[in-house]
Amino acid sequence: MAVKKIGTQTVKFNSPPVIIGTSTTVGPKEGEGPLSEYFDIILKDDLYGEKSWELAESKMLRETVKAAVKASGKKMSDMEYMFSGDLLNQSMSASFAARDLELPFFGLYGACSTMTESLSLGSMIIDGGYADNIIAVTSSHFSSAERQFRFPLEHGNQRKLTAQWTVTGSGAAVLSSFGNGPEIRYVTTGKVVDLGIKDANNMGAAMAPSAADTIVKHFEDTGLPTDYYDLIVTGDLAQIGKEIAEEMVLDKGYNILKNYNDCGLLIFDNLAQDTHAGGSGCGCSASVFCGYIYKEMMKKNINKVLLISTGALLSVTSTQQGQSIPGIAHAVSIVNKGS
Amino acid sequence: MAVKKIGTQTVKFNSPPVIIGTSTTVGPKEGEGPLSEYFDIILKDDLYGEKSWELAESKMLRETVKAAVKASGKKMSDMEYMFSGDLLNQSMSASFAARDLELPFFGLYGACSTMTESLSLGSMIIDGGYADNIIAVTSSHFSSAERQFRFPLEHGNQRKLTAQWTVTGSGAAVLSSFGNGPEIRYVTTGKVVDLGIKDANNMGAAMAPSAADTIVKHFEDTGLPTDYYDLIVTGDLAQIGKEIAEEMVLDKGYNILKNYNDCGLLIFDNLAQDTHAGGSGCGCSASVFCGYIYKEMMKKNINKVLLISTGALLSVTSTQQGQSIPGIAHAVSIVNKGS
Repeated sequence: MAVKKIGTQTVKFNSPPVIIGTSTTVGPKEGEGPLSEYFDIILKDDLYGEKSWELAESKMLRETVKAAVKASGKKMSDMEYMFSGDLLNQSMSASFAARDLELPFFGLYGACSTMTESLSLGSMIIDGGYADNIIAVTSSHFSSAERQFRFPLEHGNQRKLTAQWTVTGSGAAVLSSFGNGPEIRYVTTGKVVDLGIKDANNMGAAMAPSAADTIVKHFEDTGLPTDYYDLIVTGDLAQIGKEIAEEMVLDKGYNILKNYNDCGLLIFDNLAQDTHAGGSGCGCSASVFCGYIYKEMMKKNINKVLLISTGALLSVTSTQQGQSIPGIAHAVSIVNKGS
Repeated sequence: MAVKKIGTQTVKFNSPPVIIGTSTTVGPKEGEGPLSEYFDIILKDDLYGEKSWELAESKMLRETVKAAVKASGKKMSDMEYMFSGDLLNQSMSASFAARDLELPFFGLYGACSTMTESLSLGSMIIDGGYADNIIAVTSSHFSSAERQFRFPLEHGNQRKLTAQWTVTGSGAAVLSSFGNGPEIRYVTTGKVVDLGIKDANNMGAAMAPSAADTIVKHFEDTGLPTDYYDLIVTGDLAQIGKEIAEEMVLDKGYNILKNYNDCGLLIFDNLAQDTHAGGSGCGCSASVFCGYIYKEMMKKNINKVLLISTGALLSVTSTQQGQSIPGIAHAVSIVNKGS
């Protein structure tokens, strides 16, 4: 058997899984942002015809899966596994969507790292020969996240400038053993890193060390130069976290200043849209990757991407108990065929 | 490549992963139950020296991993991935333990199905050649679950007779590509099934349809007779759910009456210990499998086991919004070598 594990945290695929289709749904605010043209469905009302934001979020995830499967040219019955999770307590969005979709379901929790967690596990399951087609999907919703993690929206709470704005959005990708689309060449699985940040209004800073750790590990394990990638893009470190991650990676001898960006900065115009440090939420890297990045890859404007979704593993309980915020980040190397 | 996917939801392993070591930690009440002698560590105080039940649960998970790795004869640095999740909001137990253990971490959410979800994914990752050693672990804690899902304990709320008692416990298993111990031969991944039960005090009934669905699918996919197994054991359907599952499986033409039991019934003496319908929680099937079943398999008293951990995918929010309770169940076929 060819070597699959390289270095300590990276897997190299012998038969790289192909991302044969994606879809995205976003809320009204995201639809007014700089990536507007790349999203497939832009909701006019973030309740999406449902009675609660949580049910709206679950519907968004479910409908995005249906659209991604359609875009891939496959049928829902071709999907052998669904890998999904979200931010809501007990992953209500993903669980309720999985019920309606009737697919064998692996529920994940990686907070905002869930998009690359689902792509990582899905890729191993396909390359390993256990499935030919899987769905990787996640979602977040500003209103359901605010009231679960912070305050009732009616409270009109003032937000710190270090705070991020949870993206209302969902992104779904169909991975296949065969087909047209960019390939997943490597995955680098993250460790939980916690440097002691306790401010739940500064999650970028809490997640940056884990992102830096995984990025450095990816280059150590693969031996690739940092300029191999057209784009190195973290999930949702936003303004503050991105600067910290850049510096931490540089400290380890890897320079990513020229080709590094963050989904939380790409999705909103922070000044015009008053989103403070930038976007966050599982739906942030999911919609930016499945919308903007995937479409630019299909047009060959971008050919080599290292996507590192980043998660802050806090809960209301852990915050109330004075605990610091552990972070995690998983990296997925996505490259156009022939590149 | 040999065929790995059989039927619609089952994987057959060509190089079955071996469970080379396990460990368990349980609370005082579980330590007074019928399986007492099988648990490695029985806590005298369910706060375990911590300031909160949540931190105690996370410590239990972390220390159980350490003990399992020791029991397997491996070092912590040999563990290439940790697959784990729990019932707490945002999987606080698993996330905080993963931070301290410094292992590449895949966070899962399958409610009380997490033990077999982690064994399933871990097995595919090992058989697929992506790792030689992984940890599968989960936990639950009566006191942290009660106050999160139901009422403050100080409230002294009366419990319905259909209610189950969340097990305070953790079970961890080391899976390896090589070694002594029972093998994982098949995994059957469940779909989310929801027949409309809305009573969060009757989770056995809510989960039974998903358990029955996965059990039937396992026998359909593998073609094995139901008496192939010495023991078919669900995670935590307890008294009410077990009877429903038995009947639903029988309705589909599979008779499991002779060799079927449930971890929620094995762990407590329901009458003497006043646990009403029986045990539940991620730690229920984890501690019963990693304690009682694994040790009896090592003694060759039991040789062939189908373990089906079962999860109720509800949240406080979904219940408050009047939603029914989706269930999920994943089956893992564990067989002694030569059997």
